[in-house]
Amino acid sequence: MTPLKLRKVAIDTYKENVAYLHRDCPLYHSEGFQALNKIEVRDGPQRQPVVAVLNIVDDESCLAPDELGLSEQTFAQLGVAEGTAVFIDHATPPQSLEAVHRKIAGEPLNRPEFLRICQDIVNNRYSKIEIAAFLVACAESGMERDEMLFLTEAMVDTGERLDWGESLVVDKHCIGGIPGNRTTMLIVPIVAAHGMLMPKTSSRAITSPAGTADTMEVLCKVNLSPDELRGIVQQQRGFIAWGGTARLSPVDDILISVERPLSLDSKGQMIASILSKKIAAGSTHLLIDIPVGPSAKVHTQAEALRLRKLFEYVGDRSGMELEVVITDGSQPIGNGVGPALEARDVLQVLQNDPHAPIDLKEKALQLAGRILEFDPDVRGGQGYRLARDLLESGRAWQKMQDIIAAQGAAASPPQPTALQYPVEAPRDGVVTAIDNLQIARIARLAGAPMDKSAGVDLHKKLHDRVTRGTPLYTLHAEFRADYQFARNAIEQANGYTIG
Amino acid sequence: MTPLKLRKVAIDTYKENVAYLHRDCPLYHSEGFQALNKIEVRDGPQRQPVVAVLNIVDDESCLAPDELGLSEQTFAQLGVAEGTAVFIDHATPPQSLEAVHRKIAGEPLNRPEFLRICQDIVNNRYSKIEIAAFLVACAESGMERDEMLFLTEAMVDTGERLDWGESLVVDKHCIGGIPGNRTTMLIVPIVAAHGMLMPKTSSRAITSPAGTADTMEVLCKVNLSPDELRGIVQQQRGFIAWGGTARLSPVDDILISVERPLSLDSKGQMIASILSKKIAAGSTHLLIDIPVGPSAKVHTQAEALRLRKLFEYVGDRSGMELEVVITDGSQPIGNGVGPALEARDVLQVLQNDPHAPIDLKEKALQLAGRILEFDPDVRGGQGYRLARDLLESGRAWQKMQDIIAAQGAAASPPQPTALQYPVEAPRDGVVTAIDNLQIARIARLAGAPMDKSAGVDLHKKLHDRVTRGTPLYTLHAEFRADYQFARNAIEQANGYTIG
Repeated sequence: MTPLKLRKVAIDTYKENVAYLHRDCPLYHSEGFQALNKIEVRDGPQRQPVVAVLNIVDDESCLAPDELGLSEQTFAQLGVAEGTAVFIDHATPPQSLEAVHRKIAGEPLNRPEFLRICQDIVNNRYSKIEIAAFLVACAESGMERDEMLFLTEAMVDTGERLDWGESLVVDKHCIGGIPGNRTTMLIVPIVAAHGMLMPKTSSRAITSPAGTADTMEVLCKVNLSPDELRGIVQQQRGFIAWGGTARLSPVDDILISVERPLSLDSKGQMIASILSKKIAAGSTHLLIDIPVGPSAKVHTQAEALRLRKLFEYVGDRSGMELEVVITDGSQPIGNGVGPALEARDVLQVLQNDPHAPIDLKEKALQLAGRILEFDPDVRGGQGYRLARDLLESGRAWQKMQDIIAAQGAAASPPQPTALQYPVEAPRDGVVTAIDNLQIARIARLAGAPMDKSAGVDLHKKLHDRVTRGTPLYTLHAEFRADYQFARNAIEQANGYTIG
Repeated sequence: MTPLKLRKVAIDTYKENVAYLHRDCPLYHSEGFQALNKIEVRDGPQRQPVVAVLNIVDDESCLAPDELGLSEQTFAQLGVAEGTAVFIDHATPPQSLEAVHRKIAGEPLNRPEFLRICQDIVNNRYSKIEIAAFLVACAESGMERDEMLFLTEAMVDTGERLDWGESLVVDKHCIGGIPGNRTTMLIVPIVAAHGMLMPKTSSRAITSPAGTADTMEVLCKVNLSPDELRGIVQQQRGFIAWGGTARLSPVDDILISVERPLSLDSKGQMIASILSKKIAAGSTHLLIDIPVGPSAKVHTQAEALRLRKLFEYVGDRSGMELEVVITDGSQPIGNGVGPALEARDVLQVLQNDPHAPIDLKEKALQLAGRILEFDPDVRGGQGYRLARDLLESGRAWQKMQDIIAAQGAAASPPQPTALQYPVEAPRDGVVTAIDNLQIARIARLAGAPMDKSAGVDLHKKLHDRVTRGTPLYTLHAEFRADYQFARNAIEQANGYTIG
């Protein structure tokens, strides 16, 4: 085969590998390549290929006919210098696609099949549409619980796995959907103050107004190297950092990059995603929080119980100690929605401020109590009281200050937003419903999480009595356009039902 | 919103719309766009947007920060000049995706839902992964027969529809998989010689060694404008042209561009694809050929019968007169496999050459007979004899010459290939099996259909007695590399079983 000269094309194609070939490249004609075909690129006959989708270029200023262009990510994956002689070939479809076809036909797959699928995905042998086919085949009722286990294991096995060298490494995860709800930032200092190991990697917001990493970033650095994190955990027993740098369950990231734009909602995929990340992160004991409410992700107690059984089934067989708590998801937890407003709530609770939101404090104590009971020395039923002591004595606040200092405290606190707007009760009555989705939407339109200070600050919660004109919440926005988008959304529906 | 200057990026992204934005474009940061997001591009607030996937460019020589680049196809779709001020926005997911999610969950969809899905697809509102999700949800047993009907109707309604102004417009379609089998090129002159209207648009080969359009192109032009075709049909009552120019069932082309790389095999999708194209092409009467054999697409008589019922169900309800014949698909039909070799077979049959392949002639007469019986004046059971008379009298050959002249005869016949290789029987015996897939593969490796003369010329068929060294078939190739690829494949398996 004729070699081509490698060239880096300065285009960011994110999680999709793209290669560029000039239309006048002799190989394009003689070898029957076509746009959107998948090709294999290698820098020698015996080398491991990179697989990419082919785009055809018609302009010599971008690419010469004897060159092969690779998008930034793809170039980095091949890992050789520009100008290197590279060889291209038609990519053979990944062999594991055959199993995906059987999955589409309704057949359950076994452990080795899930492993081969994940290996092919992590090696970029699957195109986006092939990943979509796999996800859809696994969606909804399409997965047996053993398959969820096999997928979880395969996702762990195809990535890195951290080992903290201790037998009790705790973690918690909330399946999400509740604005505010920043319990992690209270639980970590409480359980670390007790001496438990809780190296907490968190995500940034993707569809919500704030993730734990966004909120912690209001107070300190969250983007830390693995070495830095190891140092902090030795001193402090805990940290709250962004988890994006490690290659933990990389298949999960690839699947999510397709699942999210598809808005696919697959129980099996969710369980495998959560548990594979936690196992790979080296957690041995995990508390899962499933909030239930009319505008939460899970709507009924029965649905939450089914989900709990699935988590327990997969968790037990993955060698992880796992507890599931089903909590009240009928309204936001805490008052602030948006990174800075949520950070304020967290600090108020830690500082035992009399204005601290009581619901956030109570929920955090309940969850921290369950985690503390993972400690064999803590008697069953005593966790809550222990957590409360750690919080109210100020030890948790001291621990949080130590963690913030260790991670690198933020230079200055976020400033109040330029634009604020009080949303008032339209009539006398009682708050009978708060729509989590609409409150989250309004906070995002206002600029959260990109503008740290933007969001919504709730003044009234469920069952509160209001009279006409009582402020229900205050909208915070930095930019006029965001402010107006959020105001328009509030005009349509302010998220509150007054009964 | 700030406008951007439109720029055409000379990249061919085939059936996927791609837009390019420089990383330093102020909108990229302020509006939260991300690589692989879908955006809407319009040239004014009230204009119909084009939807494209976003790639981020890091090089100012390709794109300036105040520019928006569009790939060639996307630029053509927007249809305005370079430099025009355009506006971008986050693309809202197509509303019909909600129905796709219900389909994934196992719910059957109704007529308006399929229509909305097809409208969104034809307007490029679906990304590749969304199309893949739709196809997988519809694959295998996932579609009821009413859904196949709704999808067929929706695919017709979202494209152009030809009207030939007559009440009897015949067509035929073979579901494929059998090498050779060039019956269409015999049927059209036979039935047109009878005076029936048969405006035949055919496809080029995609996975096979030759399509009807590729084979007809050996004899004459096939790439004709709608006006040219209308003129020919008035004079000749028939033509055999490439169907790629008309916008008939454009959703089908888009679905196939995803279905094919996925190797998805969905009955419902196949039926909707075939019937929507035929209805849109203005056919009123259609004969479907389902070959059955161990290496055909359909393996058993029972499977063929189920497929026939589905075709009949959808055909009857689409207001089309439809007949299905189940034929012998146990081996290639005719001797030649590859455009020029197949054209030679066709001409031999038309010219009543004593060397003409009898199986091709017989099959064509059977099918043409069934089509002639669509004519109310042809008595049931008399079609075959009428077809034979039209063929053996030379009237079909005369009609074919007229059609070739009308379409524009080819300048010169294809030359014999430079490289030929006889594949010999390894021992004495009887031919007990011929593998359609392997013969097709060998012919493609030899260069068909790109090299018109390349392919395979069969000398022995099923049940023929051979002695060791008897030539089974001759390989024809133009280029040394192709020749060697094909020879290697023959070494592995020559496609013949001698029992």
